[in-house]
Amino acid sequence: MNTFGHIFRVSIFGESHGKSVGVVIDGCPSGIPVTVEDFMKDLLRRRSGRKGTTPRSESDVPEILSGIYNGFTTGYPITIASWNKDTDSVSYEKFKTVPRPGHADFTATFKYSGFADLRGGGHFSGRLTWGLVAAGVLAKKILRNSNISAQIVEAGGSKDIEKAVELAASEGDSIGGLIECCVTNPPKGLGEPFFYPVEAAISQILFSIPAVKGVEFGSGFAAAKMRGSEHNDPFIDSDGKTLTNNAGGINGGVTNGNDIVLRIAIKPTSSISREQKTFNFETETMDTLKVEGRHDTCIALRIPVIVEASVAIALADLLLIDRGINPR
Amino acid sequence: MNTFGHIFRVSIFGESHGKSVGVVIDGCPSGIPVTVEDFMKDLLRRRSGRKGTTPRSESDVPEILSGIYNGFTTGYPITIASWNKDTDSVSYEKFKTVPRPGHADFTATFKYSGFADLRGGGHFSGRLTWGLVAAGVLAKKILRNSNISAQIVEAGGSKDIEKAVELAASEGDSIGGLIECCVTNPPKGLGEPFFYPVEAAISQILFSIPAVKGVEFGSGFAAAKMRGSEHNDPFIDSDGKTLTNNAGGINGGVTNGNDIVLRIAIKPTSSISREQKTFNFETETMDTLKVEGRHDTCIALRIPVIVEASVAIALADLLLIDRGINPR
Amino acid sequence: MNTFGHIFRVSIFGESHGKSVGVVIDGCPSGIPVTVEDFMKDLLRRRSGRKGTTPRSESDVPEILSGIYNGFTTGYPITIASWNKDTDSVSYEKFKTVPRPGHADFTATFKYSGFADLRGGGHFSGRLTWGLVAAGVLAKKILRNSNISAQIVEAGGSKDIEKAVELAASEGDSIGGLIECCVTNPPKGLGEPFFYPVEAAISQILFSIPAVKGVEFGSGFAAAKMRGSEHNDPFIDSDGKTLTNNAGGINGGVTNGNDIVLRIAIKPTSSISREQKTFNFETETMDTLKVEGRHDTCIALRIPVIVEASVAIALADLLLIDRGINPR
Amino acid sequence: MNTFGHIFRVSIFGESHGKSVGVVIDGCPSGIPVTVEDFMKDLLRRRSGRKGTTPRSESDVPEILSGIYNGFTTGYPITIASWNKDTDSVSYEKFKTVPRPGHADFTATFKYSGFADLRGGGHFSGRLTWGLVAAGVLAKKILRNSNISAQIVEAGGSKDIEKAVELAASEGDSIGGLIECCVTNPPKGLGEPFFYPVEAAISQILFSIPAVKGVEFGSGFAAAKMRGSEHNDPFIDSDGKTLTNNAGGINGGVTNGNDIVLRIAIKPTSSISREQKTFNFETETMDTLKVEGRHDTCIALRIPVIVEASVAIALADLLLIDRGINPR
Repeated sequence: MNTFGHIFRVSIFGESHGKSVGVVIDGCPSGIPVTVEDFMKDLLRRRSGRKGTTPRSESDVPEILSGIYNGFTTGYPITIASWNKDTDSVSYEKFKTVPRPGHADFTATFKYSGFADLRGGGHFSGRLTWGLVAAGVLAKKILRNSNISAQIVEAGGSKDIEKAVELAASEGDSIGGLIECCVTNPPKGLGEPFFYPVEAAISQILFSIPAVKGVEFGSGFAAAKMRGSEHNDPFIDSDGKTLTNNAGGINGGVTNGNDIVLRIAIKPTSSISREQKTFNFETETMDTLKVEGRHDTCIALRIPVIVEASVAIALADLLLIDRGINPR
Repeated sequence: MNTFGHIFRVSIFGESHGKSVGVVIDGCPSGIPVTVEDFMKDLLRRRSGRKGTTPRSESDVPEILSGIYNGFTTGYPITIASWNKDTDSVSYEKFKTVPRPGHADFTATFKYSGFADLRGGGHFSGRLTWGLVAAGVLAKKILRNSNISAQIVEAGGSKDIEKAVELAASEGDSIGGLIECCVTNPPKGLGEPFFYPVEAAISQILFSIPAVKGVEFGSGFAAAKMRGSEHNDPFIDSDGKTLTNNAGGINGGVTNGNDIVLRIAIKPTSSISREQKTFNFETETMDTLKVEGRHDTCIALRIPVIVEASVAIALADLLLIDRGINPR
Repeated sequence: MNTFGHIFRVSIFGESHGKSVGVVIDGCPSGIPVTVEDFMKDLLRRRSGRKGTTPRSESDVPEILSGIYNGFTTGYPITIASWNKDTDSVSYEKFKTVPRPGHADFTATFKYSGFADLRGGGHFSGRLTWGLVAAGVLAKKILRNSNISAQIVEAGGSKDIEKAVELAASEGDSIGGLIECCVTNPPKGLGEPFFYPVEAAISQILFSIPAVKGVEFGSGFAAAKMRGSEHNDPFIDSDGKTLTNNAGGINGGVTNGNDIVLRIAIKPTSSISREQKTFNFETETMDTLKVEGRHDTCIALRIPVIVEASVAIALADLLLIDRGINPR
Repeated sequence: MNTFGHIFRVSIFGESHGKSVGVVIDGCPSGIPVTVEDFMKDLLRRRSGRKGTTPRSESDVPEILSGIYNGFTTGYPITIASWNKDTDSVSYEKFKTVPRPGHADFTATFKYSGFADLRGGGHFSGRLTWGLVAAGVLAKKILRNSNISAQIVEAGGSKDIEKAVELAASEGDSIGGLIECCVTNPPKGLGEPFFYPVEAAISQILFSIPAVKGVEFGSGFAAAKMRGSEHNDPFIDSDGKTLTNNAGGINGGVTNGNDIVLRIAIKPTSSISREQKTFNFETETMDTLKVEGRHDTCIALRIPVIVEASVAIALADLLLIDRGINPR
């Protein structure tokens, strides 16, 4: 189930401390100009974030294994990989019996009967989002008339993001964050009810990103407290523009041409420097555990570009589907 | 794209004022005992809700067209339909040029080049969730050791739900609501990273339900304001039980055996008795519009059983996938 | 797995002696004019065939349950059903222990642990192809510039088809047949390598038809005996026309604009009037069995229109995919 | 559409003269022991074939990029790549205007608007089957109680395969061939009617292999000439064994436990040393063309191991689906 999409199809592979992480993109139109630099721009945004993101130097340079020739997409499946380097050799085997709270150690060990590679989180690592960002670069090119932009708007409940991150870091702790994404000038008519409306497509891919705990569109959770008379967005021009945008640009699961607006809740990084309690499944007693190494204090800082990529991928797939079925 | 799921596959069809709405369920194991009464129980919950739901008498009786024989599922595709009755003949054609705010009139007309049947919302109507609930009855039987239960916990921001609904109704308005769902004793190990983790599967189907504006798991949006030291759930026994449950029963996209907990934001019903402003696409001027007929004041009241069905369908699909790949 | 296609998606349901057989067609463009009579034309061809086909009067009249409004497709899923009538009540239960040779009695009973409805072949019956033919009517309308035509070219190895059928019938036996299908003026550029080339798409659907034993394209099995110098088709004009057509209109899995040509081998009807040997799984001894009722002597006679429908469905799906990815 | 399968999912990528060809295998159970040597055995069979296959030294050594750890499958997606080497730099650009007969030059150029990489056939090359064979190694391990074996049984219509190949080679020509595949002791109950019966699954993947022109199961095309009384296979024991096997081990699209038997027709290699006629799309006149380099005289010699892999992949997918739905 490592593939997202019906026509513009994105498959993710790799592990945090294995040989590589990468992505295969199928159904990408031919003739799109693309360079390694195009990828680097977003991949570096993913890496650096701002203060509070990991100082680790991951190998982010993409190697194009297939599908791009003479600077253009060929129409064939596009494979892009990144080679993992400098992965520390700290043993992760112990986490099979003493699982880290908040991580997938316990569930991965159970699900794969002990054969899962847990190093650095294995296939469950945030490192896997590298491939999402790479695929997002192509998706954005397909949606070239739209602008997709996401940013962190809160960290640990505070709008002074830098300060909040510094404070948490100084206490050996981590904090969550809130991300907002807006798509301006989206294509009209995208979304396939019933089961692939815009919100379903976008949320499926967003909830695949580790650490995402909630997704809302337009008015979102605030809608639950509202009246219909204030929530309904009156149309105001022949283009379909609405006075307000509680709908977040989507009516009946289909884009209406207004800005698509969504917010994503990110949990605090699970790895913290402090000692934590957990269960030792070997001794069958409570135990303590300290996660070594450097960690992102606020993983949410790195996630905006991943959100942009995810939204772009979902919209690109919906665009190709709509274009196939509904020639207008 | 009217199908959800990879193995336990649910396809929805129909229109609000057409001949029927229904569902085809493929990949359902054989030998499950099921009667029309089994379906009626949940279908009636969907219909009646509580005060504030529509007094309209929809035809909810399911007719089993295929896949069930002598009281048991056969292993063949199961088709269940409901015949629409007493649909009022008010003209919906005008909504193609004077679209109702909050409804899919504008987007459906654009997407399908004017050929969409808009009567009662057509294929975009909440009426379509009838098929979801019917499929959910079978999904719940597949997950027979788990209990899935959802309820409305707030309407219009108030916990006194009945009063809030009455007040809004008396003012010719509508209100949104908040629904909480909990799965106790879920199977462990369900969820397929990357792209079909539990949250992605569940949110894909939930965001297909009309009126859903947000979905969150465990700590949800509150996680964005939390510290890692408080958010991480310590394991406390050999079964994988955790002290807290901020994870909502899911680590790395895979169920850990603790309760799955989620909340869903429902917008206020779009149809209200009050006059509303909208754009007239024929005259190209602003216009006013009044939506005739009786409407649910708070559609959220009817949605808990739909949420239960959706969660059950997603988990049933994940269970069959996991059982196929990982024989334990 | 009861769905074929990625965009133009066809789902089949029903059983031979259950309440109905039918089809759901998703991803069909809106605005296609269609009437019940349009369906009847091909459905009657399927029923009557010629001499040698069953005199049984199946209920073939289609009831449109969704997706068509005011004589046009709406863009919503289209559901079409046929109600089974006059199904004889002969017991099929015995076939669970004394399975008919050539039928699915044994495999269906094993696969579904005894819960399969075997009456008239259940979901394995040729009756299910009713839905294929109905979907094919819409697929042909999508491919309106092409002509798809299939006919039986041999029965029991003889080109004098009527005589061969009569002879076999007079001996209480059945015979197989060979069907040829040709698509003139097909769209160029259809087919998605690797895994959804034209041949793969068409053969997947053709081999779903009961009784199909072989499928070949262009030169087919004769190619195995040929030389490259005679097999290669020289291009001869700027449209891509070729001098010969050993490729059957397909190069590298993609249509080249020349006629698509294929042949399908149909086995003799499994039900024959003669007494047959089989194993009695209850007594665990060899047994004899006589299949009562009237049967098609040569089921191949009814299959051409099913082949046309299948080819049309596969090409329609490929067309919508290609149109979505490759705007030319 | 570069993915085959629903649960055991195989995605192919790469081009003949690009950087690599490879495969991603998703849904593979964890805990399967596998080494590079396991892959090499079948990959070398694919490369060498026998006399008449290309003397080119392709780089066949697999590099495992993900999904295998400490000698076992982890349950994560498995990525295996091969690096292309020594690809000659002969210009293929001219084939965009002077397409080689029998090749995909014309269709690929049209479909991808001139952006397709045609070098060595690009993504349409037989080289891509490298990934199929690699995936087949894992599929065979999943089906460990069955034996899958394919061989060439005719070349150019002759059973003296070596002589036929030599003769054709001496004349600068190529020949086709016939391959037979047999699966002994297959799991019973595999196959999902309607649309994913065993024959549909296997033929979909087989017809994705370049050069395949026909596929038949059991009696195959001979069935078209047979009588029902001779074609029906009587059951003879409590295991479901049949006296004859015209069904090729499949009833109603579902395996009955008898040997699965199929035959595949392979066309003569399209590249031949002789001069050929074709159309020059630039000058718009007939032209001649000679394909340089060394070519397989009889590509069918290399295909048996690819057929085995394809059949194994299809059956592995069907096994995991059946295991998920039907716990017996």
